[in-house]
Amino acid sequence: MEITSKLLGKAVDEVSQLPGIGKRTALRLVLHLLRQPKARTEKLAEALTSLRSGICRCRECHNISDSERCEICASPKRDRSLICVVEDIRDIMAIESTGHYRGLYHVLGGKISPMEGIGPQDLQIASLVERVRDGGVRELILALSATMEGDTTNFYLYKQLEGVEVELSTIARGIPVGDDLEYADEVTLGRSILQRIPFEGSFKGQDR
Amino acid sequence: MEITSKLLGKAVDEVSQLPGIGKRTALRLVLHLLRQPKARTEKLAEALTSLRSGICRCRECHNISDSERCEICASPKRDRSLICVVEDIRDIMAIESTGHYRGLYHVLGGKISPMEGIGPQDLQIASLVERVRDGGVRELILALSATMEGDTTNFYLYKQLEGVEVELSTIARGIPVGDDLEYADEVTLGRSILQRIPFEGSFKGQDR
Repeated sequence: MEITSKLLGKAVDEVSQLPGIGKRTALRLVLHLLRQPKARTEKLAEALTSLRSGICRCRECHNISDSERCEICASPKRDRSLICVVEDIRDIMAIESTGHYRGLYHVLGGKISPMEGIGPQDLQIASLVERVRDGGVRELILALSATMEGDTTNFYLYKQLEGVEVELSTIARGIPVGDDLEYADEVTLGRSILQRIPFEGSFKGQDR
Repeated sequence: MEITSKLLGKAVDEVSQLPGIGKRTALRLVLHLLRQPKARTEKLAEALTSLRSGICRCRECHNISDSERCEICASPKRDRSLICVVEDIRDIMAIESTGHYRGLYHVLGGKISPMEGIGPQDLQIASLVERVRDGGVRELILALSATMEGDTTNFYLYKQLEGVEVELSTIARGIPVGDDLEYADEVTLGRSILQRIPFEGSFKGQDR
């Protein structure tokens, strides 16, 4: 594709630097904007600029937030004795949309991965340990990915919190609701048998 | 997905109004921007804004252009007696990247489609007829889609140009280079037989 317009070329270049967007898609998106009223593009550009300049991290849980303290941390309705540890703010959104959790969060910003050169010092681990040490936290729910890196991070957190009085739990691993047993992988199926729960408990699913 | 940050929510809303981009993808793109240096977002926003404010349509061929007259129309190397009629500026880019065309273009801005409510007056047909009437044009190559709407538009143009001295041609329809005959659809295969060309001609493919 030859783009003769410099303005168009530059816009396509910038858009195609977004992840998963190639030159062709970028061109399609930019041409779409050109067909729309000018205000459309201005609103988009304005939303991105003000997002980037206005947004900050919650000083308590590191969730992204419009103010110093995020809505969840600031809410009086939340159970402050419960902290769910997640990798990314997208995990917060996912858990929030279940409607089954009423505690606080702590965003690590990733997981320990020697392969990618991410060590404990690159994550919000020290501030988590501090939060727990400050007291008032009854339980820490580790909700990291069910991968080797997730397990490594879980274990590192466990070691860091040795001697601190707090209950540690991890979210349940098992067969997804609605899935056929025959399509489940062996590891998941194996864990779901080893970590089976009393039959009566399976009905409850009490909100925390 | 619950987005508690208003700034983030607004940015995701704006991005997800782009075609083919849903809420989830928009969120992924916006979070990517948040992880990048601030200048990245500013450059993207700036490129989009200056594109929208700076770009215009070439007054001759209606190609998008940074100036009143596009690079192709302004080039002294182009054969001004040849005009290729296309629907969209993307078709110009596609034809330009073949490197086999040295004439000018005319962008209609679509094709006649009663179903979508697009009539001849919505397209740059009058200005094309004017360009041809002004003289100096030897041949008009119709390079519209091989659809019913494309054929309708071709026929309309043909009727509009009755009595005007200009050669009309359409781009060749046939089996794509590299394709197996058995996978070609019947209409294309039928046309490729009816509109067969002399064997010697098939080697030439002379640039126009």
